[in-house]
Amino acid sequence: MSNMRAAVFVEPGRIELQHRPIPQIGPTDALLRVTTTTICGTDVHILKGEYPVKPGLIVGHEPVGIIEKLGSAVTGYEVGQRVIAGAITPCGQCHPCLDGHSSQCGGQAMGGWQLGNSIDGCQAEYVRIPNAQANLTPIPDGLDDEQVLMCPDIMSTGFGGAESGHIRIGDTVVVFAQGPIGLCATAGAKLMGATRIIVVDGVPERLDVARRLGADITINFRDEDPLLRIQEITGGAGVDVAIEALGTQQTFESCLRALKPGGTLSSLGVYSGKLSMPLDAIAAGLGDHKIITTLCPGGKERMRRLMAVVASGRVDLTPMVTHRFALDDIVEAYELFSHQRDGVLKVAITP
Amino acid sequence: MSNMRAAVFVEPGRIELQHRPIPQIGPTDALLRVTTTTICGTDVHILKGEYPVKPGLIVGHEPVGIIEKLGSAVTGYEVGQRVIAGAITPCGQCHPCLDGHSSQCGGQAMGGWQLGNSIDGCQAEYVRIPNAQANLTPIPDGLDDEQVLMCPDIMSTGFGGAESGHIRIGDTVVVFAQGPIGLCATAGAKLMGATRIIVVDGVPERLDVARRLGADITINFRDEDPLLRIQEITGGAGVDVAIEALGTQQTFESCLRALKPGGTLSSLGVYSGKLSMPLDAIAAGLGDHKIITTLCPGGKERMRRLMAVVASGRVDLTPMVTHRFALDDIVEAYELFSHQRDGVLKVAITP
Amino acid sequence: MSNMRAAVFVEPGRIELQHRPIPQIGPTDALLRVTTTTICGTDVHILKGEYPVKPGLIVGHEPVGIIEKLGSAVTGYEVGQRVIAGAITPCGQCHPCLDGHSSQCGGQAMGGWQLGNSIDGCQAEYVRIPNAQANLTPIPDGLDDEQVLMCPDIMSTGFGGAESGHIRIGDTVVVFAQGPIGLCATAGAKLMGATRIIVVDGVPERLDVARRLGADITINFRDEDPLLRIQEITGGAGVDVAIEALGTQQTFESCLRALKPGGTLSSLGVYSGKLSMPLDAIAAGLGDHKIITTLCPGGKERMRRLMAVVASGRVDLTPMVTHRFALDDIVEAYELFSHQRDGVLKVAITP
Amino acid sequence: MSNMRAAVFVEPGRIELQHRPIPQIGPTDALLRVTTTTICGTDVHILKGEYPVKPGLIVGHEPVGIIEKLGSAVTGYEVGQRVIAGAITPCGQCHPCLDGHSSQCGGQAMGGWQLGNSIDGCQAEYVRIPNAQANLTPIPDGLDDEQVLMCPDIMSTGFGGAESGHIRIGDTVVVFAQGPIGLCATAGAKLMGATRIIVVDGVPERLDVARRLGADITINFRDEDPLLRIQEITGGAGVDVAIEALGTQQTFESCLRALKPGGTLSSLGVYSGKLSMPLDAIAAGLGDHKIITTLCPGGKERMRRLMAVVASGRVDLTPMVTHRFALDDIVEAYELFSHQRDGVLKVAITP
Repeated sequence: MSNMRAAVFVEPGRIELQHRPIPQIGPTDALLRVTTTTICGTDVHILKGEYPVKPGLIVGHEPVGIIEKLGSAVTGYEVGQRVIAGAITPCGQCHPCLDGHSSQCGGQAMGGWQLGNSIDGCQAEYVRIPNAQANLTPIPDGLDDEQVLMCPDIMSTGFGGAESGHIRIGDTVVVFAQGPIGLCATAGAKLMGATRIIVVDGVPERLDVARRLGADITINFRDEDPLLRIQEITGGAGVDVAIEALGTQQTFESCLRALKPGGTLSSLGVYSGKLSMPLDAIAAGLGDHKIITTLCPGGKERMRRLMAVVASGRVDLTPMVTHRFALDDIVEAYELFSHQRDGVLKVAITP
Repeated sequence: MSNMRAAVFVEPGRIELQHRPIPQIGPTDALLRVTTTTICGTDVHILKGEYPVKPGLIVGHEPVGIIEKLGSAVTGYEVGQRVIAGAITPCGQCHPCLDGHSSQCGGQAMGGWQLGNSIDGCQAEYVRIPNAQANLTPIPDGLDDEQVLMCPDIMSTGFGGAESGHIRIGDTVVVFAQGPIGLCATAGAKLMGATRIIVVDGVPERLDVARRLGADITINFRDEDPLLRIQEITGGAGVDVAIEALGTQQTFESCLRALKPGGTLSSLGVYSGKLSMPLDAIAAGLGDHKIITTLCPGGKERMRRLMAVVASGRVDLTPMVTHRFALDDIVEAYELFSHQRDGVLKVAITP
Repeated sequence: MSNMRAAVFVEPGRIELQHRPIPQIGPTDALLRVTTTTICGTDVHILKGEYPVKPGLIVGHEPVGIIEKLGSAVTGYEVGQRVIAGAITPCGQCHPCLDGHSSQCGGQAMGGWQLGNSIDGCQAEYVRIPNAQANLTPIPDGLDDEQVLMCPDIMSTGFGGAESGHIRIGDTVVVFAQGPIGLCATAGAKLMGATRIIVVDGVPERLDVARRLGADITINFRDEDPLLRIQEITGGAGVDVAIEALGTQQTFESCLRALKPGGTLSSLGVYSGKLSMPLDAIAAGLGDHKIITTLCPGGKERMRRLMAVVASGRVDLTPMVTHRFALDDIVEAYELFSHQRDGVLKVAITP
Repeated sequence: MSNMRAAVFVEPGRIELQHRPIPQIGPTDALLRVTTTTICGTDVHILKGEYPVKPGLIVGHEPVGIIEKLGSAVTGYEVGQRVIAGAITPCGQCHPCLDGHSSQCGGQAMGGWQLGNSIDGCQAEYVRIPNAQANLTPIPDGLDDEQVLMCPDIMSTGFGGAESGHIRIGDTVVVFAQGPIGLCATAGAKLMGATRIIVVDGVPERLDVARRLGADITINFRDEDPLLRIQEITGGAGVDVAIEALGTQQTFESCLRALKPGGTLSSLGVYSGKLSMPLDAIAAGLGDHKIITTLCPGGKERMRRLMAVVASGRVDLTPMVTHRFALDDIVEAYELFSHQRDGVLKVAITP
């Protein structure tokens, strides 16, 4: 009985369910039995061939599960514990990790992102977690899988956008795009004390969810010009922090144009094509602007903090789980999620 | 006797010496008799019509002088004191100033830059200093005019580039371009504890000055590919901080490519034309990069600190004053400086 | 008609209502007609002679009012505008102000605290506001006096305690003492994203208010040992940030003992007597502890931000105004407030 | 041949050379053959029984050596490499480590200090290095043992004192006590851009070394009152940062009294007895003071940076090695060092 089902990237346009051996683990690894996982926008990029991974790779990087086996060098955990691990699984022991850049673990860009990228991921019955000592995080009693399902990636990423913006009490913040990550950025901005949160999207349902998560003002870009509206709201002053949560020239540029001189653009999007900086929006380089890009922070301390937020009831992200699928139906889940059908925000996948 | 000589922007291509009334001052102003000033690269942009100012404006923003008159609300100074004021003269009392963005005083981009931009400047016998209370800074005993002549602008800007990069002890830093500002960035990087400072320029004399100011490794881009060399020096790891001190697509892009994942680009240049972000150099937005632009910090506390650096002997910028002119010969000084003839770095102008 | 009523410190034990001339103003001042003010714990220290001020001084440092007159150098305001000013009125133009230490304006400890300390204060019909340009802050439409009455001092101070603690999303925070300032620290901790806020006091009513302002766990020190309870709550780990809001050896020491190694004690209290550091609580100096003291931040940008918080509805401090008095009855108000009778938290005084 | 010589704490007053088995290593450890080590002030506290360790413990926490054996889970190193490890050997994988508090590894105060404290140390022929992956740091080519001997502890600690003080370009800094750690703090302050460094000690030879390492002004407290002199030097303003490098009430208190309002006390000393805070020196808690204690930062990234400083030639600490002993003579070395005879600063011990 050493086989399991897993979602495998076969070729651009094709992710399919296959039977694969249950992973072997080394001394610093752990084996998780996955109880819930989800699909990320990045997985859709992989599916479409826009983000290249090796054919044959098991995809998925948002694991909720139960410890099945522990490597010999991993201490302080027990088989049977309910845990999560972050999408980013830093080692904690290399130079970048010890220097505070754990998402860039090993010194390669995005080096900390291993699951479903450089090694097999967690859209499967089992997953090997590398650097288990730094990454396994017990789920607090009383929280169910779906409550913590957003922690490994989108909550960490979205909150990271607010944190990298160094939002302060009383700030005015705009978040461009209210997909799952933008919504988490909105929640994060509220949690850090922003008192005027403006969000921009084109889907009314997403703006509704945004409002529940903390947005004070919603702008549907199909109905009005966001930059004119922001100018009006701020009396021409501009916002303190603009969070980019889509990855397009337009949203990036709008963020810059929305900023006050001295403001911060906190960028979460994955860009493709070309990205240019309108010089008038940055005073030709003399506006004291900051542009900060953030990859999802990982590691068990990060996960512990995020689950503490969930446990506190300060933020409730469960409304974001709009659909549920068995692992056997994951191809169908990809179909729905990649076409953003039926008001989908996030799907829960249960093996 | 209320007339003075002053360098006036007449039209693109023409700055000339004119007779103008000695400025009147209001209650919060001071009148300085200028004893030494200099020409900045930005003045050359003004001369060429690349940076627009109102025809008739007296140019210049780097004043060293003697207090001639004090506004009624200005306290703690005396007529006859030797002082400097920064190129940026913040009010200290508006929202951006009180929020730590004093170069963006008033909330307009570059709002703190008034002298020789929005009001008459200091390439003249006299200059009115606005917000005198926040800007007049007595020159420490024992320092002559040329020793503090770099403080108002290029020393403050260059050091600001190092500071915005948050350079730490043991950092590897590259500075692209070693004109006056780049040279000051090099000196600033050394002062903050960078232990491997790489500088890039195409003029051997500038690389020589750089070495005296703290550069450990000089790269003449005419002789070798800076990025290949940096890769070699850092063993492929990239630099912690890259400082852009020119304002071109090429140097900006080279800075990004020189960075380690998680690194910081500290940008000082004034860009023209187009500026684009190569996505491969920023891991499509997932490399935890920071891009920070800095306008010359001003105000009397800043000036006091910079003169303390000069007085301490930690940094000697006097080798940067390569030529001297009387105010009467300022047109000739512009001619030399704007064509970067004769190994000029900075000129001293004495009315 | 140049006379007004004002609360004057006569001698230790005696503050009384007197008739005094309406203040004259200079070019950088403003004259406010006070519409609402309040009494602070510090005023009680003054009354008792524990904090020395000059006999004859008008007390009070929390003004809400209407601009009656503007100095000739003050721009951008209009007579008749409703404004507040902070308890601390920095000039914005001295070295400490320009260096980010505006509460220590002028370089003397507490130099920014002028109202009711080094110059006449605002428990009066009129008050002169010094450095008006840096301090007058228009009240947003729709907010009444009592809604912004906490901004000048206790909200700024309490929030400052949370900010100086550098509270991060997911932190566990303890606040020792839930008087008005401690309650504001609790509200500030919640606003910055602390997800487990523990508060300690001996008055059940204050613990109730604390709960409404964001406390997750309340400890009545008369019923149980706070340190044992904190140890239990945190599983022996200690808290990330401990906020001291009383000013006694016991609360200071308890804060240190409650901290995790590497934690931060943010101190707001005004201490008297002796203050000692238990060495076992700071690992003899090797525990990477931070102790940060904070004096109420002032200035108009600070006041603007705090009123933005009020306007956003994120925090409602009006329940803290438990009693209301006419200025004529201010001696009675002192009597009540200084004895903490009748569940008083803050009193509103209306001239 | 599994025996080695080692300096062992036997009882208060007695450290002696014994024969002990060469350490066994586990999968995450490394075995170093020690080539050079030194004695620290803390070891003297251990010798005197002032800092309690288990009798039988091998002391010493400053290892320079050669990799003799590597645990099975340790990668990227080779037997025979010359390396150092820090006095603090964090795991990199626990909550405090991942939260930026690696000296407090595991959550116990000083938890990161294992060598010669909670496990056998390196005043021996061989030493087991725990968490080897996070701690072994190759010595750059061209540096000999004595050049890097200060990195594991005193250089890291002293520089840490400057870093925790957040020294900025142009700061005035005082360092109280110029023993080995104070001297390194002086060097660190210079490296970070302090331009007026005042040092205080009672030993002229130490003040001489201080001058070579960056002190601008030296004060022998036997000849003059340091606080009066500092007041004079700063024109009554006080210093920006005061570094305590001894661990006594007097130096701690002098640091507080030397500070400007808003200044930072960076504390490195190990205190014994009582420590009290003079309220007048901290404006009763209203002076915006910061007190920050720092335990020696460790980990291989830290060690790499410090050795980069050495390699750059920015700082030369070799004059601090005043005496040399064979391991066989270590009892004699303790005798000399603990009595600070013969102008000793640091001793090199070679097994």
